[in-house]
Amino acid sequence: MYNVQVHVTYKDSVLDPQGQAVQGAVARLGFEGVDHMRIGKFFEMQVAGSDQAAVTEKVEAICDQLLANPNMEQYRYDIQSMEAE
Amino acid sequence: MYNVQVHVTYKDSVLDPQGQAVQGAVARLGFEGVDHMRIGKFFEMQVAGSDQAAVTEKVEAICDQLLANPNMEQYRYDIQSMEAE
Repeated sequence: MYNVQVHVTYKDSVLDPQGQAVQGAVARLGFEGVDHMRIGKFFEMQVAGSDQAAVTEKVEAICDQLLANPNMEQYRYDIQSMEAE
Repeated sequence: MYNVQVHVTYKDSVLDPQGQAVQGAVARLGFEGVDHMRIGKFFEMQVAGSDQAAVTEKVEAICDQLLANPNMEQYRYDIQSMEAE
């Protein structure tokens, strides 16, 4: 069993209006010096698989087919064996 | 200047219906062995500050006052100096 974390964010070339809105709210609350706010989604899951390579292949397929919109979003993932902990 | 990453997730005691919906969709796509799906929000930002302690204090205040709902959500953050890279 593997612990998998996936981050899905807008591509750098895509405007992030939600991030800009939150950045504006941060400034209106009086916090200075906060910039380049970007917001993304974060998925945590446990994935069964015979080895890290099999899990990696499965996670990439799930991201491509479901979690990320390939037109506007990019993803990255981190896979850790639960046995090693 | 510091690079800050904030993860906001539901507390473990709070049901995550969105995560359950995505887990169901993963299963319907034919991927087996995916469990304990939880979904959260992910914020990336650059924060100015004199030192790590000042930035930490600012980030915690921003999370408490804006990014996380203290009733239902928990947050964790990672702060890295951009000069060190």
